[in-house]
Amino acid sequence: MITLASDKNNFMKIIFLATYFTALSGMVNAQNNDSIMFRKIAGNILSKGTAYDNLRMLTKQIGARLSGSLQQQKAEKATFQMMKDMGADTVYFQECMVPHWVRGEKEMAYYLSADGKKMPVSICALGNSIGTGKNGLKANIVEVRSWKELVEYGEKGIKGKIVFFNTPMDQQIISPADGYSEIREYRSEGPSRAAKYGAVATVVRSVASNTDDRPHTGQMTYNDSFPKIPAVAVSGIGADAMEAALRKNNSLSIFIRTTSETLPDVVGHNVIGEIRGSSFANEIITVGGHLDSWDLAEGAHDDGSGCVQSMELIRVFKTLGIRPKHTIRVVLFTDEENRSSGASKYFESAKAENKKHIFALESDDGGFVPRGFRFQGSEAQRQKAIQWLPLFLPYDVYKFEPGEAGADVEVLAPLGLPMAGLYPDAQRYFDLHHTSGDVFENVNKRELHLGAAVMAMLVYMVDEHGLN
Amino acid sequence: MITLASDKNNFMKIIFLATYFTALSGMVNAQNNDSIMFRKIAGNILSKGTAYDNLRMLTKQIGARLSGSLQQQKAEKATFQMMKDMGADTVYFQECMVPHWVRGEKEMAYYLSADGKKMPVSICALGNSIGTGKNGLKANIVEVRSWKELVEYGEKGIKGKIVFFNTPMDQQIISPADGYSEIREYRSEGPSRAAKYGAVATVVRSVASNTDDRPHTGQMTYNDSFPKIPAVAVSGIGADAMEAALRKNNSLSIFIRTTSETLPDVVGHNVIGEIRGSSFANEIITVGGHLDSWDLAEGAHDDGSGCVQSMELIRVFKTLGIRPKHTIRVVLFTDEENRSSGASKYFESAKAENKKHIFALESDDGGFVPRGFRFQGSEAQRQKAIQWLPLFLPYDVYKFEPGEAGADVEVLAPLGLPMAGLYPDAQRYFDLHHTSGDVFENVNKRELHLGAAVMAMLVYMVDEHGLN
Repeated sequence: MITLASDKNNFMKIIFLATYFTALSGMVNAQNNDSIMFRKIAGNILSKGTAYDNLRMLTKQIGARLSGSLQQQKAEKATFQMMKDMGADTVYFQECMVPHWVRGEKEMAYYLSADGKKMPVSICALGNSIGTGKNGLKANIVEVRSWKELVEYGEKGIKGKIVFFNTPMDQQIISPADGYSEIREYRSEGPSRAAKYGAVATVVRSVASNTDDRPHTGQMTYNDSFPKIPAVAVSGIGADAMEAALRKNNSLSIFIRTTSETLPDVVGHNVIGEIRGSSFANEIITVGGHLDSWDLAEGAHDDGSGCVQSMELIRVFKTLGIRPKHTIRVVLFTDEENRSSGASKYFESAKAENKKHIFALESDDGGFVPRGFRFQGSEAQRQKAIQWLPLFLPYDVYKFEPGEAGADVEVLAPLGLPMAGLYPDAQRYFDLHHTSGDVFENVNKRELHLGAAVMAMLVYMVDEHGLN
Repeated sequence: MITLASDKNNFMKIIFLATYFTALSGMVNAQNNDSIMFRKIAGNILSKGTAYDNLRMLTKQIGARLSGSLQQQKAEKATFQMMKDMGADTVYFQECMVPHWVRGEKEMAYYLSADGKKMPVSICALGNSIGTGKNGLKANIVEVRSWKELVEYGEKGIKGKIVFFNTPMDQQIISPADGYSEIREYRSEGPSRAAKYGAVATVVRSVASNTDDRPHTGQMTYNDSFPKIPAVAVSGIGADAMEAALRKNNSLSIFIRTTSETLPDVVGHNVIGEIRGSSFANEIITVGGHLDSWDLAEGAHDDGSGCVQSMELIRVFKTLGIRPKHTIRVVLFTDEENRSSGASKYFESAKAENKKHIFALESDDGGFVPRGFRFQGSEAQRQKAIQWLPLFLPYDVYKFEPGEAGADVEVLAPLGLPMAGLYPDAQRYFDLHHTSGDVFENVNKRELHLGAAVMAMLVYMVDEHGLN
């Protein structure tokens, strides 16, 4: 399972980075005006930025913003007003239907120790999961560490039991986001793949880069071919305890009780603010994050940060008197966490409008210190952006790697535009991701604002020089 | 005061980085063995490292380790034992006399509002400061924002008053360490420079990159030509309040009470652990951090992190069976914060021993995610290290900049050896630096361990390939 920086990766990184530094020295004077603008943007945001205060409002005053919740509605109104106050030329809502899943009562679980004691463990229901009902559910545990093991157990080993997907994140992988991607499927697909063999519920070890007592929730999708069964995540400490108990007694049973349920869809909105382009008003640069969050905390990193960073672009452009040639459209997407209905709605609308989409940028990897951007588009477009890298280096931004821009803006891919995602340093992210720890106090103001600044710089460059 | 990333800096960074990527592609195979070793080192530390647990012991079990304190003694014993347990070939103490300054009772301060109300502000005595005495001290405030202003006020404006050095850190400077360096003098030299004109005490705005209610302590040195006066730091919130009150009433008075004092020097120790070199036992590579800390918190980042990262090198080399050619000497310096007596002692001893010092590495900028190293030595030596950069890139380490290695190992400079300092991302550091917030909970395990890993990698390369 070790996919550590391989020699091949290493070699590719060298080649990749080597391209940065070809023919750079002649470019500095030509880019002098841009470099002055970069200083103004960073200087203004670092000393007078409002992203951090706006994040405080979204998190401490409004709170968790699960799609379908009252707080999601409050956040829509609050961010609409923020963009108005920043001087956006237009602010509007884009309506769509969003899922309305509710967690219900606080979850409860315990396993039975060898001597019959009830040993409580911290769990949370996964998003979209059905509940166990008020009486809960008790069954024997089958511990499974891979899809292969699941298949090997088959119906004989699994029917009537609760499957415990117990695969920790590989700590040796340098990028925790890669470690996350490697095992996320046990959370999102595990329930239906276990139900196929007759499992009555699943418990997944939290997808986390640390070990504490916080369970990590997150999206789970039922496959309609199989029965829907309750699905929960257990904290790292809980998973360790169950693992140790199973070593002593492999016919351990567990009790879980959840009352989550899915209510009928409700109306939600993307919140959109624009600065009208001075030369090409019908050519659109989309910049965004998602306004919804999970319900266990305030969604400070995920993705309050991306929302306030995106809005900050309107404020800094207006404050500095930057008049973009193209229309800058800040989109706060609804319902990224569940069904991406906000992104789908935006894509439908983008296809229908008689406008050209020339670039899209997303921030949805946490409000941590930026290291660069991931570029999604042609290699020629990324190479053009790499020529701008010397301007970004003074801000400690150096990675312009190929990669996925982000779950929301990616829906625009069929329109054939180049896209990018902010690439923050995420070593701390998966300690907090989708847990009760994703709160305002865990966001640093300078890190958040530096991210906002480099996003504004990239948008400025694309607007000024294009990516084609 | 804005010294933001200038064009000149920008240009130099381009030239600097361009040198990284010359003639790299042919090097990869030659470095294959090193790259395998890097993977082993990082893999071991990220999955089984003990630096984080050792830091927990130093901080949560022992606590603040101000030189002269009982905890400093406990920390010496604990780290001695840790290095023994890691299998160091030799572990020993190096004795020296260290200062013994004590804070005394909790400090107290208030200013008098226009209507005569006592308005409390959070202060702390600066290290080495004398106290006000039990009755405290009350005098009118003179607000000073620069050395120039201080001179302009002169004796006429300052005599009998308390000077309030009120210069905030420039938030527009990208590296907070640079912002810190720019205004640190108001803390370290302000008291004597104000005493020259007859000031009776000084209050300095905390040298911080955020604004909260924690005062930041730190070292202050009296100039023997002038009277010693009490010197305190006020929190950012307190400084803002005083500043606002002064706008309304410029003959504001302030009361401060501190009972700090300097006791006679006591015995302290550098704690040293060695792995004996297999080929060149008399050629020394020094790796270290400082074991002492300020007394307001646990010294988790400053510099418990550097100590446990340095010791981790012994553990990982011993665990992986790496037998260095040269002697690796891990030095946990005593008394960095006050008088650098540990570093001085180590330098005297290094001069006296009949051994060659070939490299020194320090970690004293916090246990944050690493971005690179600062190299102190000849440009040719740094260029040699830069050739290794492709090996480091997979670990997100890319900055091999010229700079100061660190306050402790720098004393070795007269021996003519190349030196380096770990260069972590420090955007969050000056929120916590020298405050009650510098606690274990604010150190992230993966960030700390990645720093330890890249330190071990650099030492491995210098041992294997040399820097000359």
